[in-house]
Amino acid sequence: MSHHLTRFGVAVPENLLSKFDRLIKEKGYGNRSKALCDLIRQKIVEQDWNLSDKETVGTITIVYNHSFREIADTLNHLQHHYYSQIISNLHVHLDLHNCLEVLVVKGKVKNIKKISDRLMATKGVKQASLCMAGTGKEL
Amino acid sequence: MSHHLTRFGVAVPENLLSKFDRLIKEKGYGNRSKALCDLIRQKIVEQDWNLSDKETVGTITIVYNHSFREIADTLNHLQHHYYSQIISNLHVHLDLHNCLEVLVVKGKVKNIKKISDRLMATKGVKQASLCMAGTGKEL
Amino acid sequence: MSHHLTRFGVAVPENLLSKFDRLIKEKGYGNRSKALCDLIRQKIVEQDWNLSDKETVGTITIVYNHSFREIADTLNHLQHHYYSQIISNLHVHLDLHNCLEVLVVKGKVKNIKKISDRLMATKGVKQASLCMAGTGKEL
Amino acid sequence: MSHHLTRFGVAVPENLLSKFDRLIKEKGYGNRSKALCDLIRQKIVEQDWNLSDKETVGTITIVYNHSFREIADTLNHLQHHYYSQIISNLHVHLDLHNCLEVLVVKGKVKNIKKISDRLMATKGVKQASLCMAGTGKEL
Repeated sequence: MSHHLTRFGVAVPENLLSKFDRLIKEKGYGNRSKALCDLIRQKIVEQDWNLSDKETVGTITIVYNHSFREIADTLNHLQHHYYSQIISNLHVHLDLHNCLEVLVVKGKVKNIKKISDRLMATKGVKQASLCMAGTGKEL
Repeated sequence: MSHHLTRFGVAVPENLLSKFDRLIKEKGYGNRSKALCDLIRQKIVEQDWNLSDKETVGTITIVYNHSFREIADTLNHLQHHYYSQIISNLHVHLDLHNCLEVLVVKGKVKNIKKISDRLMATKGVKQASLCMAGTGKEL
Repeated sequence: MSHHLTRFGVAVPENLLSKFDRLIKEKGYGNRSKALCDLIRQKIVEQDWNLSDKETVGTITIVYNHSFREIADTLNHLQHHYYSQIISNLHVHLDLHNCLEVLVVKGKVKNIKKISDRLMATKGVKQASLCMAGTGKEL
Repeated sequence: MSHHLTRFGVAVPENLLSKFDRLIKEKGYGNRSKALCDLIRQKIVEQDWNLSDKETVGTITIVYNHSFREIADTLNHLQHHYYSQIISNLHVHLDLHNCLEVLVVKGKVKNIKKISDRLMATKGVKQASLCMAGTGKEL
């Protein structure tokens, strides 16, 4: 990955720029370049997640009721089937009944989506959200 | 509205920029400034639609089966209640049964959302999507 | 299209159902079946818009500054290239400078996305949003 | 939380139901009730994330270049400021330069959004995505 920065000029309407400056100040940005790079990266990552064979990284967040045994079985089954693609898991006890689990997943877009679908369909799982991250390498 | 452009320099990692250049070429952009302005505008419009009292403009697209009488009644009712806020409608016959209608709506964010909710809840309406546009003035 | 309804039973946790009932009342629904059908339709339309060769219907909303001549040229060009796919246009004057235009577009998902990209990339266009509707036939 | 299920009948157009049955089979669902409950939960969670004072749970995924020192400082600073709200972190080394970190965050919607904004604005952070989960309790 190249850290080398390229500098170039942009022309933006005055009033649009002043709105943008206010927005990025609110969001805590120190300068425009970082904010613009972030908008660009976001666009590129969105685009990549349309390509089903693209290798990428994502996180899947699930909220579930741990008293259902099926969730353990499914996670087990997924870990056999998609062994190499689930990098790691973080488990948080929300209360007596509810758990939140985040899976960091690396693989083809279509496989990551399939893992997320499988989890969502599992009994006891109340929510499954796929966060489309990236490998960082391309960005 | 000011058309006056402000020029400033941006620093972007080389490889991120080359990806962005490829993306905007695919999308048919002639130059980077236009593409970056669009990303900025999109961000600002998104932000504005979180403010429920903000005056803005949007379009509501509905697909419905015109054989249900309720849709005509609802549109009628909405036009009395939100008279000044529905600027105009476009109606397209998709087939013997199905119609698509686009409403251009101007008003407070919360009212536009309410109109969209009402339409969606109407019998015969199969789909209602709110497109969060803007007045153009701020952009 | 079949209007024939199929009735079936659903089992939903008590507290989830009471929350749902409150939500759909706020949104103006008269009964649960309509609200559930809408959730189902939305899911199916989302899914369809991932298939690039699927024939569908959508609307593209653009906000632009009409003093830029390019927008007229682009719309002209698009109308030659994608003639059969742009069903109709609605034009609204927002103020002295700004126009909103909604295009109703019918065709393959990939072509509709391309038309939307082209419009967004055109000089003077400040915003372009694609609303993923459907033909109504499948729903 | 009540696990008690309420059973009720739904009327859905025949062809919409057959499409839905195909979709949920593809996604690996065993029955319709689970699939419909998931659609309902998703809608309710979406709604809750519009209320800025609502207490909820989310995950923030960031991808960053660990060679920038600022990220460590920011995480440190956030942990002082929002100490009680960051439940736990998962860190994954993607390659020599890039790290992925998932934060599980519990608190008011507005605070969770602020933490996510702060992280995104930090030098070295290439991506920050907020996954709007829930406490599970209400679902």
